[in-house]
Amino acid sequence: MTGAASDDLRWMDVALALGRRGLGQTAPNPAVGCVIVREGRVVGRGRTAPGGRPHAERVALDLAGAAARGGTAYVTLEPCAHRGATAPCADALIEAGIARCVLALRDPDPRVDGAGAARMRAAGIEVVEGVRAGRAARDQAGFLLSRTEGRPFVTLKLAATLDGRIATATGESRWITSTEARRLVHAERARHDAVLVGAGTVRADDPDLSVRGFPVPRQPVRAVLSRRLDLPLGRLAATAREVPVILVHGEGAPGDARTAWDAAGAERIAIPSPRGRHVDPAAALRALAGRGVTRVLCEGGGTLAAALLQAGLADELLVFGAGVALGAEGRPMLGALGVDALADAPRFALRELRPVGPDTLARWGRA
Amino acid sequence: MTGAASDDLRWMDVALALGRRGLGQTAPNPAVGCVIVREGRVVGRGRTAPGGRPHAERVALDLAGAAARGGTAYVTLEPCAHRGATAPCADALIEAGIARCVLALRDPDPRVDGAGAARMRAAGIEVVEGVRAGRAARDQAGFLLSRTEGRPFVTLKLAATLDGRIATATGESRWITSTEARRLVHAERARHDAVLVGAGTVRADDPDLSVRGFPVPRQPVRAVLSRRLDLPLGRLAATAREVPVILVHGEGAPGDARTAWDAAGAERIAIPSPRGRHVDPAAALRALAGRGVTRVLCEGGGTLAAALLQAGLADELLVFGAGVALGAEGRPMLGALGVDALADAPRFALRELRPVGPDTLARWGRA
Repeated sequence: MTGAASDDLRWMDVALALGRRGLGQTAPNPAVGCVIVREGRVVGRGRTAPGGRPHAERVALDLAGAAARGGTAYVTLEPCAHRGATAPCADALIEAGIARCVLALRDPDPRVDGAGAARMRAAGIEVVEGVRAGRAARDQAGFLLSRTEGRPFVTLKLAATLDGRIATATGESRWITSTEARRLVHAERARHDAVLVGAGTVRADDPDLSVRGFPVPRQPVRAVLSRRLDLPLGRLAATAREVPVILVHGEGAPGDARTAWDAAGAERIAIPSPRGRHVDPAAALRALAGRGVTRVLCEGGGTLAAALLQAGLADELLVFGAGVALGAEGRPMLGALGVDALADAPRFALRELRPVGPDTLARWGRA
Repeated sequence: MTGAASDDLRWMDVALALGRRGLGQTAPNPAVGCVIVREGRVVGRGRTAPGGRPHAERVALDLAGAAARGGTAYVTLEPCAHRGATAPCADALIEAGIARCVLALRDPDPRVDGAGAARMRAAGIEVVEGVRAGRAARDQAGFLLSRTEGRPFVTLKLAATLDGRIATATGESRWITSTEARRLVHAERARHDAVLVGAGTVRADDPDLSVRGFPVPRQPVRAVLSRRLDLPLGRLAATAREVPVILVHGEGAPGDARTAWDAAGAERIAIPSPRGRHVDPAAALRALAGRGVTRVLCEGGGTLAAALLQAGLADELLVFGAGVALGAEGRPMLGALGVDALADAPRFALRELRPVGPDTLARWGRA
């Protein structure tokens, strides 16, 4: 590897780290990072601002001012080429006199998709593409999936005993994992655009689902799947005007439940639920993507978690394990998957493994 | 910490590492390590030989020869003071002219229990006790438990999917964990005096339970708990004359099964089984301790694992996790524990966490 290429990797890593900090804050826009380097020194840096604007390139260029001229811009996603609320970032980089632009990923948005790179090349900028493309694709999987498949990236959080149980037979579950693990769950909520649970979890726990314990520029949307909308009007209803609540329910949900949640300030999405007992998770995720959600943290329960796994919709598993055993009477962390043969079971590859307080954390990605 | 104390810790760690290599090879004797240091250099080292003799001190002294005179001996367990097959090690250290002896643990054996240290002190040796006592007690837990409680140390191996399942609903379980994980299980077998399974595991898998893949000076005893001795005469029976098989069964086990296993060369231990359907695990472990077993690796199944946990007899849990989900229909890694409240559930503290091939390994000890 040449010195130049090694520098490119290093600066792109800085840009990736910057962009990553915007995850959960920029939807429906991607969380991009940008570093502007001239003569081996950073003269500007930025990430997509909370809410999605200004873009990372604009932030970095404003910081660099005249120092950007002749410099190299490292951007984790191809700069936009289409006129939105502001001028396209490709144009801004050209106007600032950037000499070289290193990109991790092309933007699959049909309004960009190579047009940003082409416009810069036409203006005489040397454009290098595909640097740290793999890492960038993992970071921006939510944005990419929402553009290419019309669904958000799904992280499935599972917290269980060392034998895979989430509650005693009588339903006692507070607390199996430690305060350290629960604090990390709040940090994960902040990195997602929405927190999703099934109706059973709302009935059992009356959860709040917001980020607590540290300030966030934007709270994730709280989403619940409930075919019949038979949910108690608890914490979610009480706070629906402060932090958005989206209820995805079947078309046959009773009118009084709809009225009550509308009055509380929740948003509802009715989707056809012809077969089976539960809202189709694929349809629900498409509906959330339609509301601008690119990253979903599903926090259970076991039935919804199993439905997502069964449908191949779980992109990442975040499994907390506590040093306690509950035995076969305990409630299982996953519902039925309908798997008869090992070869048909959903498989994942280990991405991270570490202790969190007294518990374990294993992060599994698609195999 | 003074320089001298820091040196003592460092040399004792070397002795502990030496001793640890003997685990599973020395029962009923403890796996002791010994380092002899003079003028800052190791002049002798040894560990209890496979089979339990010669003792670590004898090995180290023989290696050191005349260089031991005036040196410091680091021994992970108090040297014996009673005349067995050979002269007591305390006498050997005195005769070799050792000036100082640093010990990790007292030997609770009533024939020693301070007598070794006292004899050396009477001969003018400076004796320091309790250096790295905690680590030594963990390493030698099997020897200590067998002396103080009349039962072996029990490691419970559990290998499951990320949701705690050990087989599909139809019983398919080969292979959930990786070859790397299974290789590590063989290494763990070699560190134990006996491998223990329940009758269900023998019926389902016809396991061999021996150490394969690398040479060991001594294979662990293969032990099976089976109240009615209704076991197929499979791999265990076929190899019982090469590697010992101990069957712990109820007094009511039928005569023809006893005869068949006797003919195969297995050892049998009949114990009263008045209540319930299974052999009492505490009684079975006492029986194994009576046969010189100080360390047991229990490899399941879920019923026996649960019985050990329920009885508070699982000292360490070795949990392998594979990146695959089987859902609620899969067979659970643990049977029923009869735990109603979280506060009553068996708790463990994390000792080790690392990837093993594509799988995870969590080692949990007593909380």
